[in-house]
Amino acid sequence: MKFSQLHTRTIKEAREYDSVNATLLTQAGFIDQVMAGVYAFLPLGLRVLNKIETIVREEMDKIGTEISMPSLSPMTLWQQSGRLETIDVLMKTTGANEISKRKSTKEYILNATHEEIVTPIAKKFNASYKDFPFAFYQIQTKFRNEARAKSGLLRGREFRMKDLYSFHTSEEELIDYYQKAKEAYMAVYRRLGIGDDTYIVQASGGAFTDNYSHEFQVKCETGEDQVFLDPVSKVAFNQEIAPSRAPVFDQAGEQPQPLHKTLTKGITGMQALVEFLQVDPRRCVKTLIYQTSNGQLIAAAVRGDYDISDEKLRHATGATSLSLASETVVREATGAETGYAGLIGLPDSVKVFVDDSLQGIINFECGANETDYHFTNVNWGRDLPEPETYHDLKVVKPGDISPESNQPYEVFVGSEVGNIFPLGTKYSQAFDFTFADQNGKEQLVQMGCYGIGITRLMGVLVEKFHDEKGIIWPESVAPFRVHLISLRGAEAQAQQLYQNLAQQGVEVLWDEREVSPGIKFADADLIGIPVRLVVSERTSGQVEWKQRNSDTSELLSVEDTLSRLQR
Amino acid sequence: MKFSQLHTRTIKEAREYDSVNATLLTQAGFIDQVMAGVYAFLPLGLRVLNKIETIVREEMDKIGTEISMPSLSPMTLWQQSGRLETIDVLMKTTGANEISKRKSTKEYILNATHEEIVTPIAKKFNASYKDFPFAFYQIQTKFRNEARAKSGLLRGREFRMKDLYSFHTSEEELIDYYQKAKEAYMAVYRRLGIGDDTYIVQASGGAFTDNYSHEFQVKCETGEDQVFLDPVSKVAFNQEIAPSRAPVFDQAGEQPQPLHKTLTKGITGMQALVEFLQVDPRRCVKTLIYQTSNGQLIAAAVRGDYDISDEKLRHATGATSLSLASETVVREATGAETGYAGLIGLPDSVKVFVDDSLQGIINFECGANETDYHFTNVNWGRDLPEPETYHDLKVVKPGDISPESNQPYEVFVGSEVGNIFPLGTKYSQAFDFTFADQNGKEQLVQMGCYGIGITRLMGVLVEKFHDEKGIIWPESVAPFRVHLISLRGAEAQAQQLYQNLAQQGVEVLWDEREVSPGIKFADADLIGIPVRLVVSERTSGQVEWKQRNSDTSELLSVEDTLSRLQR
Repeated sequence: MKFSQLHTRTIKEAREYDSVNATLLTQAGFIDQVMAGVYAFLPLGLRVLNKIETIVREEMDKIGTEISMPSLSPMTLWQQSGRLETIDVLMKTTGANEISKRKSTKEYILNATHEEIVTPIAKKFNASYKDFPFAFYQIQTKFRNEARAKSGLLRGREFRMKDLYSFHTSEEELIDYYQKAKEAYMAVYRRLGIGDDTYIVQASGGAFTDNYSHEFQVKCETGEDQVFLDPVSKVAFNQEIAPSRAPVFDQAGEQPQPLHKTLTKGITGMQALVEFLQVDPRRCVKTLIYQTSNGQLIAAAVRGDYDISDEKLRHATGATSLSLASETVVREATGAETGYAGLIGLPDSVKVFVDDSLQGIINFECGANETDYHFTNVNWGRDLPEPETYHDLKVVKPGDISPESNQPYEVFVGSEVGNIFPLGTKYSQAFDFTFADQNGKEQLVQMGCYGIGITRLMGVLVEKFHDEKGIIWPESVAPFRVHLISLRGAEAQAQQLYQNLAQQGVEVLWDEREVSPGIKFADADLIGIPVRLVVSERTSGQVEWKQRNSDTSELLSVEDTLSRLQR
Repeated sequence: MKFSQLHTRTIKEAREYDSVNATLLTQAGFIDQVMAGVYAFLPLGLRVLNKIETIVREEMDKIGTEISMPSLSPMTLWQQSGRLETIDVLMKTTGANEISKRKSTKEYILNATHEEIVTPIAKKFNASYKDFPFAFYQIQTKFRNEARAKSGLLRGREFRMKDLYSFHTSEEELIDYYQKAKEAYMAVYRRLGIGDDTYIVQASGGAFTDNYSHEFQVKCETGEDQVFLDPVSKVAFNQEIAPSRAPVFDQAGEQPQPLHKTLTKGITGMQALVEFLQVDPRRCVKTLIYQTSNGQLIAAAVRGDYDISDEKLRHATGATSLSLASETVVREATGAETGYAGLIGLPDSVKVFVDDSLQGIINFECGANETDYHFTNVNWGRDLPEPETYHDLKVVKPGDISPESNQPYEVFVGSEVGNIFPLGTKYSQAFDFTFADQNGKEQLVQMGCYGIGITRLMGVLVEKFHDEKGIIWPESVAPFRVHLISLRGAEAQAQQLYQNLAQQGVEVLWDEREVSPGIKFADADLIGIPVRLVVSERTSGQVEWKQRNSDTSELLSVEDTLSRLQR
């Protein structure tokens, strides 16, 4: 393709966005922001998107069958699954003006995900155990009502997504398939050039399932997530759920001191408390009062240098959902204002869960369950009974120990490039999707769902592969393989080379514009095509070969250039 | 692909829809209705859709550059074009539940067409006459708030569409390109097997442009439109705008009779009148009172056996828009209730437009502009002045004469498979899209837009190509080229043939299920793949070859089968 046929161009003067991917992709002419979180894909951008989609499609074809589901769906399907009122990014459609509303007042859901659509379809055609297992997938546009769309292609209101749904006769079969899906995902990432840097990370289930799920996280300096990797087992966790042990707080030689009640008037919160008491936060106990969805009060305690993970607490307590108790409830339960809760003297109605960072601690500080007072020099056994069991309730931090290997976690910053969820029977129950087993008995279908954000992936690749001059595309998804630059006087040679490359099936972008060499070189660096070829009077019949990810160039004959580009 | 891998199946018992395409595509397992006007494309259906898209893409790549624009856009763009309040199928998005609305109350337009999106993008990158002409196109999902979605894939609330937009420095350049686009469209239809039956039909501009436009209409018994084809010039028109002359009403030998005022109490409307007066409607004058958008009153008259075309009247009067006057306005203008308007004695404030079907007519009947009275035996010149000019205001009918060739039109029923519009400067004006001409002077860009409904096209192909047993796909878009049926005892031979075909690159669907031959044959006819191959014990090592569009079959050796399928 000739550069002038793009009918777009680089825009060096484009404003800086809040992310590298939005800035570089806009400056290089790949995308154009139509509004926050919504982009048009220009010729270069569409080529990249199509290549990513093709790779994803080829790998998904190995584990599923492609279909295409609509963006609109009736409200009733979402009522049936119970998600109409619970998905906070769900959008619906309605007439945009008076005459449209007069035509039809009906409203439809704009699908943010497709469990509600695919389950009835799968049910319609598959009724016997012999039909299982199977999986349907699609690559399609999704819509989410993000409050603040940000980070360019990483989090949009409208985005391309591959979503696959699998159907099984048993949990074992689902787990088997789940493993196959992991492998298919890793095959995608390998082909995108990020296989070595992508980790399968255990995560919570989010709005999709009550079970744990898995994220695929690629190491990336500008990523949004911290990933905790066990250095021995190589199992990785996201911050929300990584099991962790705190590094030991060494109190060797310390003797129990007399319990003391200290006036801490108006002092609440760990930060204020350690400053006021001049103590190490590691000898403090943070106690928070939670309430579960069915009203049970929970006191959760963790060492002062940690926070409590709602997700871990939910699992420890077995509650379906829980949240911090209101000030009124805290006052009734502890007899004190919020900020003074502690473990001594709580009523029996409050169940206590203590984090294992507090095991073995002596002379610790904790709230007195009395407004304006904290206890210091508290000791298990003497001042309050030691917990029968300790739990892991803490939000993991760099430096923490993996309980599995007893080694400190390796921690890296990652960007999510996919996620998979074992859904269990949540949707087969909602849509009454059963199959007849070998004995003719109806059983609920087990399901899994598996997503890859295609446009997001394009953004992540730019976040990961760029330098100060522009993008550096992996060859598998680059818009073209060769960026041919012809300088004044070498037009005829360029024309010949362009034709030879085309005949050889090499995708080439030929910058044949009448602009300065400096502009052409800068544009090539910004656009980031893997191989740059320059022909000019100075190359005297030869071709200058330079790779985008290298600083050196070399002069090659036309024949050597062509043969090097032969696959 | 093996039949059992589809994980869909034919559903003979599926309900009959209001159209052949919805019924057959559902029964054959190509689509599944998610709600009225919204469909999921199952594995077979998606394959057909992709093939149509590929053909369209290949032909469009010859005249434009592919991009991909979003489905969401901000209201402001539609305010700027003035279409926010005028497009009656426009939809917008809003939060679907309380928590989503709490997150964001913003509303976005769900694009029904993309002039508002593409014009600002084209403007951003193209500013000099040297950048022109060019065209951007996309293949994308569109949304329309249809009151009653109907006819299966022919008219959906959500559908796939190819829309192309061209940009020019002059009207001549636009007309040149418009011609190229027509040729590209015809190339698409030829490849889809409907080239010989598709006509370029002049039509009105609809909501897109004030100019005329063109529709591509394919002859199809179940089509929605009547097309009028001049038998000499082969120029075709849709019913709304086809120029027409009425066949002459022979009044040879008739002498003018005395004018007579007849009591026609309560008799309004042509049907009631001709019955009451016992006259030929061809000697009656139908007079309707219109009002233009700036208040001008118009009396439009046409022979009693015709209706008045609003579109033709709008052109004859030069009005931007007009509509039938209210009963009150009619009463004020004519002095009579609606139904008694006529051409004698109208006030000067009413402009009169007379259809050429009334030229030379004698002894005609028309309303008396007096409630309950009509005149009979009216004669031009004697009872009222003959119009200085006659116009073509009538809605064309089969039997009418083409004014161009003086021959009766050939009339056929068609289904629309594409449309193209010369937009002029409507959107370049709205978005201030100018270019610097050779003298550095800023000029408005000329635009055209060009649409093909991809999903609609799939529906039209089924309407056109089917018989009582099922679909008969054109080879270019069939989901597979070969439907291989193996009967009991020939599984090994089928497996071998299946592998040979795959190696040869022939797309084959192998029905390897353990069901009766009757079911397999019926399914093959319903699905409509071009070539059916059967292997069974009875074919004894050979292959039965039958084409879907033929009643005869033949026995071939495996070698002959393979070589016949070699491209």
